[in-house]
Amino acid sequence: MPRYRLLVEFDGTPYKGWQRQKNGHTVQAAIEQAILAFSNEEVTLQAAGRTDTGVHATGQVAHADLARDWPEKRVQEAINAMLAQAGERVSILEARQVGEDFHARFSATARHYLYRIINRRPPLALERDRAWWVRKGDIDAGAMHKAAQLLLGTHDFNTFRAAQCQAKSSIKTLDRLDVRRNGDVIEVRASARSFLHNQVRSMVGSIKLVGEGRWTNDDLVAALEARDHQACGALAPPCGLYLIGVDYD
Amino acid sequence: MPRYRLLVEFDGTPYKGWQRQKNGHTVQAAIEQAILAFSNEEVTLQAAGRTDTGVHATGQVAHADLARDWPEKRVQEAINAMLAQAGERVSILEARQVGEDFHARFSATARHYLYRIINRRPPLALERDRAWWVRKGDIDAGAMHKAAQLLLGTHDFNTFRAAQCQAKSSIKTLDRLDVRRNGDVIEVRASARSFLHNQVRSMVGSIKLVGEGRWTNDDLVAALEARDHQACGALAPPCGLYLIGVDYD
Repeated sequence: MPRYRLLVEFDGTPYKGWQRQKNGHTVQAAIEQAILAFSNEEVTLQAAGRTDTGVHATGQVAHADLARDWPEKRVQEAINAMLAQAGERVSILEARQVGEDFHARFSATARHYLYRIINRRPPLALERDRAWWVRKGDIDAGAMHKAAQLLLGTHDFNTFRAAQCQAKSSIKTLDRLDVRRNGDVIEVRASARSFLHNQVRSMVGSIKLVGEGRWTNDDLVAALEARDHQACGALAPPCGLYLIGVDYD
Repeated sequence: MPRYRLLVEFDGTPYKGWQRQKNGHTVQAAIEQAILAFSNEEVTLQAAGRTDTGVHATGQVAHADLARDWPEKRVQEAINAMLAQAGERVSILEARQVGEDFHARFSATARHYLYRIINRRPPLALERDRAWWVRKGDIDAGAMHKAAQLLLGTHDFNTFRAAQCQAKSSIKTLDRLDVRRNGDVIEVRASARSFLHNQVRSMVGSIKLVGEGRWTNDDLVAALEARDHQACGALAPPCGLYLIGVDYD
Protein backbone atom coordinates (compact mmCIF):
# COMPACT_ATOMS: atom_id res chain seq x y z
CA MET A 1 0.00 0.00 0.00
CA PRO A 2 1.50 3.33 -1.01
CA ARG A 3 2.17 5.72 1.86
CA TYR A 4 1.51 9.44 1.44
CA ARG A 5 3.11 12.16 3.49
CA LEU A 6 0.97 15.28 3.82
CA LEU A 7 2.09 18.79 4.73
CA VAL A 8 -0.86 20.43 6.47
CA GLU A 9 -1.88 24.00 7.26
CA PHE A 10 -4.85 24.70 9.51
CA ASP A 11 -6.62 27.39 11.47
CA GLY A 12 -7.07 25.66 14.81
CA THR A 13 -9.83 27.99 16.04
CA PRO A 14 -12.86 25.84 15.15
CA TYR A 15 -11.28 22.47 16.03
CA LYS A 16 -10.94 20.41 19.18
CA GLY A 17 -7.29 19.95 18.35
CA TRP A 18 -5.65 17.50 15.98
CA GLN A 19 -6.58 14.11 17.32
CA ARG A 20 -9.81 12.37 16.38
CA GLN A 21 -12.22 12.09 19.29
CA LYS A 22 -15.85 11.27 19.96
CA ASN A 23 -16.88 14.72 21.19
CA GLY A 24 -16.07 17.49 18.80
CA HIS A 25 -14.64 17.92 15.36
CA THR A 26 -10.88 17.67 14.90
CA VAL A 27 -8.37 18.35 12.14
CA GLN A 28 -7.50 14.66 11.87
CA ALA A 29 -11.16 13.75 11.41
CA ALA A 30 -11.60 16.50 8.81
CA ILE A 31 -8.76 15.12 6.69
CA GLU A 32 -9.75 11.48 7.17
CA GLN A 33 -13.30 12.32 6.08
CA ALA A 34 -11.93 14.13 3.03
CA ILE A 35 -9.84 11.08 2.11
CA LEU A 36 -12.86 8.84 2.57
CA ALA A 37 -14.96 11.14 0.38
CA PHE A 38 -12.59 11.04 -2.58
CA SER A 39 -11.10 7.52 -2.34
CA ASN A 40 -13.74 5.60 -0.43
CA GLU A 41 -10.96 4.45 1.88
CA GLU A 42 -11.08 4.60 5.66
CA VAL A 43 -7.65 5.59 6.84
CA THR A 44 -6.05 6.56 10.12
CA LEU A 45 -3.65 9.46 9.90
CA GLN A 46 -0.45 9.55 11.91
CA ALA A 47 0.86 13.01 12.68
CA ALA A 48 4.09 14.55 13.89
CA GLY A 49 2.38 16.66 16.56
CA ARG A 50 -0.96 16.22 18.29
CA THR A 51 -1.90 19.84 18.70
CA ASP A 52 -4.45 21.04 21.26
CA THR A 53 -7.74 22.87 20.73
CA GLY A 54 -7.13 26.28 19.17
CA VAL A 55 -3.50 25.64 18.20
CA HIS A 56 -2.64 26.39 14.56
CA ALA A 57 -0.28 24.88 12.03
CA THR A 58 1.48 25.97 8.89
CA GLY A 59 3.70 22.87 8.77
CA GLN A 60 2.07 19.86 10.42
CA VAL A 61 3.14 16.56 8.82
CA ALA A 62 0.96 13.46 8.71
CA HIS A 63 0.94 10.22 6.78
CA ALA A 64 -1.67 7.77 5.57
CA ASP A 65 -1.61 4.50 3.64
CA LEU A 66 -3.94 4.27 0.68
CA ALA A 67 -4.87 1.06 -1.10
CA ARG A 68 -4.69 2.63 -4.52
CA ASP A 69 -1.63 4.14 -6.09
CA TRP A 70 -2.78 7.70 -6.82
CA PRO A 71 -0.57 10.38 -8.33
CA GLU A 72 0.67 12.74 -5.60
CA LYS A 73 -0.94 15.83 -7.15
CA ARG A 74 -4.24 14.01 -7.43
CA VAL A 75 -4.18 13.13 -3.73
CA GLN A 76 -3.44 16.71 -2.76
CA GLU A 77 -6.04 18.27 -5.05
CA ALA A 78 -8.74 15.73 -4.17
CA ILE A 79 -8.31 16.12 -0.41
CA ASN A 80 -8.30 19.91 -0.76
CA ALA A 81 -11.43 19.81 -2.90
CA MET A 82 -13.25 17.70 -0.31
CA LEU A 83 -12.02 19.88 2.56
CA ALA A 84 -13.26 22.99 0.75
CA GLN A 85 -16.62 21.36 0.08
CA ALA A 86 -16.98 20.59 3.78
CA GLY A 87 -16.04 24.17 4.69
CA GLU A 88 -12.98 23.05 6.66
CA ARG A 89 -10.20 25.45 7.60
CA VAL A 90 -7.56 22.94 6.62
CA SER A 91 -5.33 22.86 3.54
CA ILE A 92 -2.92 20.24 2.21
CA LEU A 93 0.17 22.16 1.09
CA GLU A 94 1.93 19.11 -0.34
CA ALA A 95 1.40 15.37 -0.80
CA ARG A 96 4.34 13.07 -1.45
CA GLN A 97 4.66 9.31 -1.76
CA VAL A 98 7.13 8.00 0.75
CA GLY A 99 8.55 4.60 1.68
CA GLU A 100 7.00 2.30 4.27
CA ASP A 101 9.80 3.15 6.66
CA PHE A 102 8.60 6.75 6.90
CA HIS A 103 6.50 7.55 9.96
CA ALA A 104 5.27 11.11 10.47
CA ARG A 105 5.64 10.83 14.23
CA PHE A 106 8.52 8.42 14.83
CA SER A 107 10.78 9.47 11.94
CA ALA A 108 10.68 13.14 12.91
CA THR A 109 14.08 14.50 13.94
CA ALA A 110 12.92 17.99 14.92
CA ARG A 111 9.74 19.94 15.54
CA HIS A 112 9.53 23.71 15.18
CA TYR A 113 6.96 25.91 16.86
CA LEU A 114 6.23 29.61 16.71
CA TYR A 115 4.47 31.38 19.56
CA ARG A 116 3.05 34.85 18.89
CA ILE A 117 2.36 37.44 21.58
CA ILE A 118 0.89 40.84 20.81
CA ASN A 119 1.76 43.29 23.57
CA ARG A 120 -0.46 46.37 23.38
CA ARG A 121 -3.30 47.92 25.35
CA PRO A 122 -6.09 47.83 22.73
CA PRO A 123 -7.76 44.44 22.22
CA LEU A 124 -6.95 42.45 19.08
CA ALA A 125 -9.47 42.67 16.25
CA LEU A 126 -7.72 41.15 13.23
CA GLU A 127 -5.38 38.94 15.28
CA ARG A 128 -7.90 37.63 17.78
CA ASP A 129 -7.54 33.83 18.03
CA ARG A 130 -4.17 34.20 16.25
CA ALA A 131 -1.99 35.54 19.07
CA TRP A 132 -1.85 35.93 22.83
CA TRP A 133 -3.01 39.42 23.73
CA VAL A 134 -0.89 40.72 26.63
CA ARG A 135 -2.03 44.22 27.46
CA LYS A 136 0.16 44.98 30.43
CA GLY A 137 3.10 47.36 30.13
CA ASP A 138 6.05 46.77 27.90
CA ILE A 139 7.26 43.20 27.94
CA ASP A 140 11.05 43.10 27.77
CA ALA A 141 11.67 40.62 24.96
CA GLY A 142 15.43 40.88 25.47
CA ALA A 143 15.05 39.71 29.05
CA MET A 144 12.74 36.91 27.86
CA HIS A 145 15.33 35.82 25.33
CA LYS A 146 18.15 35.76 27.89
CA ALA A 147 16.05 33.77 30.33
CA ALA A 148 14.99 31.39 27.56
CA GLN A 149 18.62 30.43 26.95
CA LEU A 150 18.72 28.96 30.48
CA LEU A 151 16.25 26.31 29.34
CA LEU A 152 18.32 25.11 26.38
CA GLY A 153 19.92 21.68 26.47
CA THR A 154 18.86 18.43 28.11
CA HIS A 155 16.74 18.75 31.24
CA ASP A 156 13.93 17.11 33.09
CA PHE A 157 11.12 19.40 31.85
CA ASN A 158 8.52 18.01 34.25
CA THR A 159 7.70 21.57 35.38
CA PHE A 160 6.78 22.49 31.82
CA ARG A 161 4.30 19.79 30.94
CA ALA A 162 0.60 19.20 31.31
CA ALA A 163 -0.68 17.07 34.19
CA GLN A 164 -2.23 14.77 31.60
CA CYS A 165 0.98 14.41 29.54
CA GLN A 166 1.45 10.76 28.63
CA ALA A 167 5.18 10.74 27.87
CA LYS A 168 7.05 8.14 29.93
CA SER A 169 10.05 10.38 30.43
CA SER A 170 10.02 14.12 30.96
CA ILE A 171 13.66 14.44 29.93
CA LYS A 172 13.93 16.38 26.67
CA THR A 173 16.55 18.31 24.79
CA LEU A 174 15.59 21.87 23.87
CA ASP A 175 17.62 23.11 20.91
CA ARG A 176 16.21 26.58 20.41
CA LEU A 177 14.09 29.09 22.30
CA ASP A 178 14.49 32.48 20.64
CA VAL A 179 12.51 35.58 21.51
CA ARG A 180 12.34 38.61 19.24
CA ARG A 181 10.23 41.72 19.34
CA ASN A 182 9.10 43.63 16.28
CA GLY A 183 6.82 46.53 17.23
CA ASP A 184 3.92 45.12 19.25
CA VAL A 185 4.62 41.55 18.17
CA ILE A 186 6.81 39.22 20.21
CA GLU A 187 7.73 35.98 18.46
CA VAL A 188 9.08 32.97 20.32
CA ARG A 189 10.61 30.19 18.22
CA ALA A 190 11.11 26.79 19.80
CA SER A 191 12.83 23.75 18.32
CA ALA A 192 13.49 20.28 19.72
CA ARG A 193 13.46 16.67 18.59
CA SER A 194 10.20 16.37 20.53
CA PHE A 195 8.24 18.27 23.15
CA LEU A 196 6.15 17.27 26.13
CA HIS A 197 2.43 18.02 26.12
CA ASN A 198 2.01 21.79 26.68
CA GLN A 199 5.78 22.29 26.90
CA VAL A 200 6.00 25.26 24.55
CA ARG A 201 2.99 27.00 26.08
CA SER A 202 4.35 26.34 29.60
CA MET A 203 7.79 27.71 28.75
CA VAL A 204 6.32 30.77 27.02
CA GLY A 205 4.01 31.45 29.98
CA SER A 206 6.99 31.32 32.33
CA ILE A 207 9.50 33.37 30.36
CA LYS A 208 6.79 35.98 29.80
CA LEU A 209 6.84 36.50 33.59
CA VAL A 210 10.55 37.30 33.25
CA GLY A 211 9.73 39.76 30.46
CA GLU A 212 7.25 41.46 32.77
CA GLY A 213 9.80 41.67 35.58
CA ARG A 214 7.69 39.44 37.81
CA TRP A 215 10.22 36.59 37.69
CA THR A 216 14.01 36.74 37.77
CA ASN A 217 16.21 34.33 35.84
CA ASP A 218 16.78 32.57 39.16
CA ASP A 219 13.03 32.07 39.55
CA LEU A 220 12.94 30.44 36.12
CA VAL A 221 15.84 28.12 36.94
CA ALA A 222 14.24 27.27 40.29
CA ALA A 223 11.01 26.41 38.47
CA LEU A 224 12.90 24.14 36.06
CA GLU A 225 14.74 22.45 38.91
CA ALA A 226 11.55 21.90 40.89
CA ARG A 227 10.52 19.29 38.28
CA ASP A 228 6.93 19.94 39.31
CA HIS A 229 4.30 21.29 36.96
CA GLN A 230 2.83 23.28 39.85
CA ALA A 231 6.02 25.36 39.70
CA CYS A 232 5.24 26.46 36.14
CA GLY A 233 4.69 30.20 35.92
CA ALA A 234 1.65 30.16 33.68
CA LEU A 235 0.29 28.36 30.65
CA ALA A 236 0.18 30.58 27.56
CA PRO A 237 -3.13 30.26 25.68
CA PRO A 238 -3.33 27.94 22.67
CA CYS A 239 -4.33 30.60 20.11
CA GLY A 240 -0.75 31.98 19.96
CA LEU A 241 0.84 28.65 19.08
CA TYR A 242 1.72 27.46 15.57
CA LEU A 243 3.36 24.19 14.55
CA ILE A 244 5.46 25.56 11.71
CA GLY A 245 7.61 22.66 10.64
CA VAL A 246 8.87 19.13 11.16
CA ASP A 247 12.25 17.79 10.06
CA TYR A 248 13.05 14.31 8.77
CA ASP A 249 16.36 12.80 7.76
CA MET B 1 -19.13 69.46 22.66
CA PRO B 2 -15.71 67.82 22.66
CA ARG B 3 -14.85 65.98 19.46
CA TYR B 4 -12.99 62.67 19.63
CA ARG B 5 -10.95 61.20 16.82
CA LEU B 6 -10.79 57.40 16.89
CA LEU B 7 -8.23 55.16 15.21
CA VAL B 8 -10.01 51.89 14.45
CA GLU B 9 -8.91 48.34 13.63
CA PHE B 10 -11.46 45.76 12.54
CA ASP B 11 -11.84 42.34 11.04
CA GLY B 12 -14.40 43.03 8.32
CA THR B 13 -15.44 39.39 7.88
CA PRO B 14 -18.59 39.42 10.06
CA TYR B 15 -19.74 42.93 9.10
CA LYS B 16 -21.86 44.40 6.33
CA GLY B 17 -19.19 47.01 5.84
CA TRP B 18 -18.61 50.23 7.74
CA GLN B 19 -21.78 52.23 7.24
CA ARG B 20 -24.80 51.82 9.50
CA GLN B 21 -27.75 50.26 7.71
CA LYS B 22 -31.08 48.66 8.49
CA ASN B 23 -30.24 45.17 7.29
CA GLY B 24 -27.16 43.71 8.87
CA HIS B 25 -24.63 44.64 11.49
CA THR B 26 -21.89 47.12 10.60
CA VAL B 27 -18.70 48.42 12.15
CA GLN B 28 -20.16 51.91 12.55
CA ALA B 29 -23.16 50.51 14.40
CA ALA B 30 -20.92 48.38 16.62
CA ILE B 31 -18.93 51.43 17.75
CA GLU B 32 -21.98 53.67 18.10
CA GLN B 33 -23.64 51.03 20.29
CA ALA B 34 -20.48 50.78 22.39
CA ILE B 35 -20.44 54.56 22.86
CA LEU B 36 -24.12 54.51 23.81
CA ALA B 37 -23.47 51.70 26.29
CA PHE B 38 -20.76 53.57 28.20
CA SER B 39 -21.86 57.20 27.87
CA ASN B 40 -25.59 56.94 27.31
CA GLU B 41 -25.09 59.23 24.31
CA GLU B 42 -26.46 58.59 20.84
CA VAL B 43 -23.81 59.67 18.39
CA THR B 44 -23.27 59.44 14.65
CA LEU B 45 -19.74 58.58 13.65
CA GLN B 46 -18.11 60.15 10.62
CA ALA B 47 -15.39 58.04 9.00
CA ALA B 48 -12.58 58.62 6.53
CA GLY B 49 -13.52 55.58 4.43
CA ARG B 50 -16.83 53.76 4.07
CA THR B 51 -15.49 50.25 3.57
CA ASP B 52 -17.54 47.47 1.99
CA THR B 53 -18.64 44.14 3.43
CA GLY B 54 -15.63 41.97 4.24
CA VAL B 55 -13.04 44.74 3.90
CA HIS B 56 -10.68 45.09 6.89
CA ALA B 57 -8.96 48.01 8.55
CA THR B 58 -5.92 48.58 10.68
CA GLY B 59 -6.11 52.36 10.38
CA GLN B 60 -9.66 53.60 9.82
CA VAL B 61 -10.26 57.05 11.32
CA ALA B 62 -13.62 58.25 12.60
CA HIS B 63 -14.85 61.07 14.78
CA ALA B 64 -17.75 61.62 17.15
CA ASP B 65 -18.94 64.50 19.32
CA LEU B 66 -19.71 63.64 22.92
CA ALA B 67 -21.64 65.90 25.31
CA ARG B 68 -19.36 65.15 28.22
CA ASP B 69 -15.68 65.94 28.38
CA TRP B 70 -14.14 62.51 29.03
CA PRO B 71 -10.41 61.90 29.29
CA GLU B 72 -9.09 60.42 26.02
CA LYS B 73 -7.87 57.18 27.63
CA ARG B 74 -11.23 56.74 29.33
CA VAL B 75 -13.06 57.01 25.99
CA GLN B 76 -10.76 54.46 24.37
CA GLU B 77 -10.89 51.96 27.23
CA ALA B 78 -14.65 52.27 27.72
CA ILE B 79 -15.47 51.76 24.03
CA ASN B 80 -13.10 48.79 23.87
CA ALA B 81 -14.63 47.27 27.00
CA MET B 82 -18.13 47.57 25.51
CA LEU B 83 -16.98 46.20 22.14
CA ALA B 84 -15.38 43.22 23.88
CA GLN B 85 -18.53 42.62 25.91
CA ALA B 86 -20.58 42.57 22.72
CA GLY B 87 -18.10 40.15 21.08
CA GLU B 88 -17.27 42.62 18.31
CA ARG B 89 -14.18 42.24 16.15
CA VAL B 90 -13.41 45.92 16.41
CA SER B 91 -10.75 47.68 18.48
CA ILE B 92 -10.08 51.36 19.16
CA LEU B 93 -6.32 51.80 18.85
CA GLU B 94 -6.33 55.44 19.92
CA ALA B 95 -8.76 58.16 20.99
CA ARG B 96 -7.78 61.82 20.84
CA GLN B 97 -9.63 65.03 21.49
CA VAL B 98 -9.53 67.24 18.42
CA GLY B 99 -10.85 70.65 17.48
CA GLU B 100 -14.25 71.26 15.94
CA ASP B 101 -12.61 71.94 12.61
CA PHE B 102 -11.43 68.33 12.37
CA HIS B 103 -13.58 66.08 10.18
CA ALA B 104 -12.53 62.45 9.72
CA ARG B 105 -13.78 62.45 6.13
CA PHE B 106 -13.36 65.99 4.85
CA SER B 107 -10.06 66.84 6.58
CA ALA B 108 -8.29 63.74 5.26
CA THR B 109 -5.42 64.55 2.91
CA ALA B 110 -4.55 60.96 1.98
CA ARG B 111 -5.91 57.45 2.32
CA HIS B 112 -3.70 54.37 2.27
CA TYR B 113 -4.86 50.90 1.36
CA LEU B 114 -3.15 47.52 1.30
CA TYR B 115 -4.40 44.72 -0.92
CA ARG B 116 -3.13 41.20 -0.21
CA ILE B 117 -3.07 38.41 -2.79
CA ILE B 118 -1.84 34.91 -1.96
CA ASN B 119 -0.75 33.12 -5.12
CA ARG B 120 -0.47 29.38 -4.54
CA ARG B 121 -2.30 26.22 -5.52
CA PRO B 122 -3.41 24.96 -2.09
CA PRO B 123 -6.43 26.74 -0.60
CA LEU B 124 -5.92 29.19 2.26
CA ALA B 125 -6.59 27.88 5.74
CA LEU B 126 -5.14 30.50 8.10
CA GLU B 127 -5.50 33.38 5.64
CA ARG B 128 -8.99 32.64 4.40
CA ASP B 129 -11.07 35.85 4.51
CA ARG B 130 -7.77 37.78 4.89
CA ALA B 131 -6.42 37.64 1.34
CA TRP B 132 -7.44 36.95 -2.26
CA TRP B 133 -6.54 33.37 -3.10
CA VAL B 134 -5.27 33.23 -6.69
CA ARG B 135 -4.34 29.65 -7.48
CA LYS B 136 -3.37 29.99 -11.11
CA GLY B 137 0.28 29.89 -12.18
CA ASP B 138 2.86 32.36 -11.10
CA ILE B 139 1.61 35.92 -11.15
CA ASP B 140 4.34 38.28 -12.31
CA ALA B 141 4.32 40.95 -9.63
CA GLY B 142 7.01 42.90 -11.48
CA ALA B 143 4.76 43.17 -14.53
CA MET B 144 1.88 44.19 -12.25
CA HIS B 145 4.00 46.91 -10.71
CA LYS B 146 5.08 48.30 -14.07
CA ALA B 147 1.51 48.34 -15.33
CA ALA B 148 0.33 49.96 -12.10
CA GLN B 149 2.60 52.95 -12.72
CA LEU B 150 0.53 53.74 -15.84
CA LEU B 151 -2.41 54.54 -13.58
CA LEU B 152 -0.56 57.08 -11.45
CA GLY B 153 -1.47 60.73 -11.68
CA THR B 154 -4.73 62.51 -12.40
CA HIS B 155 -7.21 60.63 -14.57
CA ASP B 156 -10.87 60.03 -15.07
CA PHE B 157 -11.09 56.70 -13.20
CA ASN B 158 -14.65 55.97 -14.30
CA THR B 159 -13.54 52.51 -15.49
CA PHE B 160 -12.39 51.67 -12.00
CA ARG B 161 -15.45 52.45 -9.96
CA ALA B 162 -18.63 50.70 -8.90
CA ALA B 163 -21.81 51.30 -10.84
CA GLN B 164 -23.38 52.53 -7.60
CA CYS B 165 -20.53 54.96 -6.81
CA GLN B 166 -22.02 58.27 -5.69
CA ALA B 167 -19.06 60.56 -6.33
CA LYS B 168 -19.99 63.51 -8.57
CA SER B 169 -16.69 63.43 -10.39
CA SER B 170 -14.68 60.35 -11.32
CA ILE B 171 -11.50 62.38 -11.71
CA LYS B 172 -9.00 61.40 -9.03
CA THR B 173 -5.26 61.65 -8.48
CA LEU B 174 -3.55 58.36 -7.72
CA ASP B 175 -0.27 58.93 -5.87
CA ARG B 176 0.95 55.40 -5.33
CA LEU B 177 0.21 51.92 -6.62
CA ASP B 178 3.11 49.66 -5.64
CA VAL B 179 3.20 45.91 -6.13
CA ARG B 180 5.69 43.67 -4.32
CA ARG B 181 5.95 39.92 -4.04
CA ASN B 182 7.37 38.10 -1.04
CA GLY B 183 7.08 34.34 -1.49
CA ASP B 184 3.43 33.49 -2.13
CA VAL B 185 2.22 36.88 -0.95
CA ILE B 186 1.69 39.79 -3.33
CA GLU B 187 1.07 43.12 -1.64
CA VAL B 188 -0.40 46.09 -3.46
CA ARG B 189 -0.19 49.47 -1.73
CA ALA B 190 -2.40 52.28 -2.96
CA SER B 191 -2.44 55.90 -1.83
CA ALA B 192 -4.51 58.89 -2.92
CA ARG B 193 -6.26 61.88 -1.42
CA SER B 194 -9.48 59.96 -2.01
CA PHE B 195 -10.71 56.98 -3.97
CA LEU B 196 -13.88 56.15 -5.86
CA HIS B 197 -16.13 53.36 -4.61
CA ASN B 198 -14.39 50.03 -5.44
CA GLN B 199 -11.47 51.85 -7.06
CA VAL B 200 -8.70 49.90 -5.33
CA ARG B 201 -10.40 46.55 -5.90
CA SER B 202 -11.07 47.44 -9.55
CA MET B 203 -7.48 48.49 -10.18
CA VAL B 204 -6.11 45.38 -8.42
CA GLY B 205 -8.43 43.12 -10.42
CA SER B 206 -7.21 44.70 -13.64
CA ILE B 207 -3.47 44.80 -12.97
CA LYS B 208 -3.69 41.17 -11.80
CA LEU B 209 -4.69 40.33 -15.40
CA VAL B 210 -1.43 41.92 -16.51
CA GLY B 211 0.45 39.82 -13.93
CA GLU B 212 -1.16 36.71 -15.40
CA GLY B 213 -0.20 37.71 -18.93
CA ARG B 214 -3.85 37.98 -19.97
CA TRP B 215 -3.67 41.74 -20.39
CA THR B 216 -0.88 43.87 -21.83
CA ASN B 217 -0.01 47.32 -20.55
CA ASP B 218 -1.85 48.65 -23.60
CA ASP B 219 -4.99 46.78 -22.56
CA LEU B 220 -4.78 48.46 -19.16
CA VAL B 221 -4.35 51.91 -20.68
CA ALA B 222 -7.22 51.24 -23.09
CA ALA B 223 -9.40 50.24 -20.16
CA LEU B 224 -8.52 53.45 -18.31
CA GLU B 225 -9.19 55.54 -21.39
CA ALA B 226 -12.55 53.85 -22.03
CA ARG B 227 -13.89 55.65 -18.91
CA ASP B 228 -16.48 52.89 -18.64
CA HIS B 229 -16.74 50.55 -15.70
CA GLN B 230 -17.67 47.73 -18.10
CA ALA B 231 -14.08 47.98 -19.36
CA CYS B 232 -12.70 47.09 -15.93
CA GLY B 233 -10.82 43.78 -15.99
CA ALA B 234 -12.23 42.29 -12.83
CA LEU B 235 -13.20 43.29 -9.31
CA ALA B 236 -10.84 41.84 -6.70
CA PRO B 237 -12.75 40.36 -3.73
CA PRO B 238 -13.18 42.47 -0.58
CA CYS B 239 -11.41 40.08 1.82
CA GLY B 240 -7.96 41.10 0.52
CA LEU B 241 -8.45 44.81 1.15
CA TYR B 242 -7.26 46.71 4.24
CA LEU B 243 -7.66 50.41 5.00
CA ILE B 244 -4.30 50.90 6.70
CA GLY B 245 -4.07 54.62 7.29
CA VAL B 246 -5.43 58.11 6.78
CA ASP B 247 -3.39 61.30 6.78
CA TYR B 248 -4.41 64.71 8.09
CA ASP B 249 -2.56 68.00 8.05
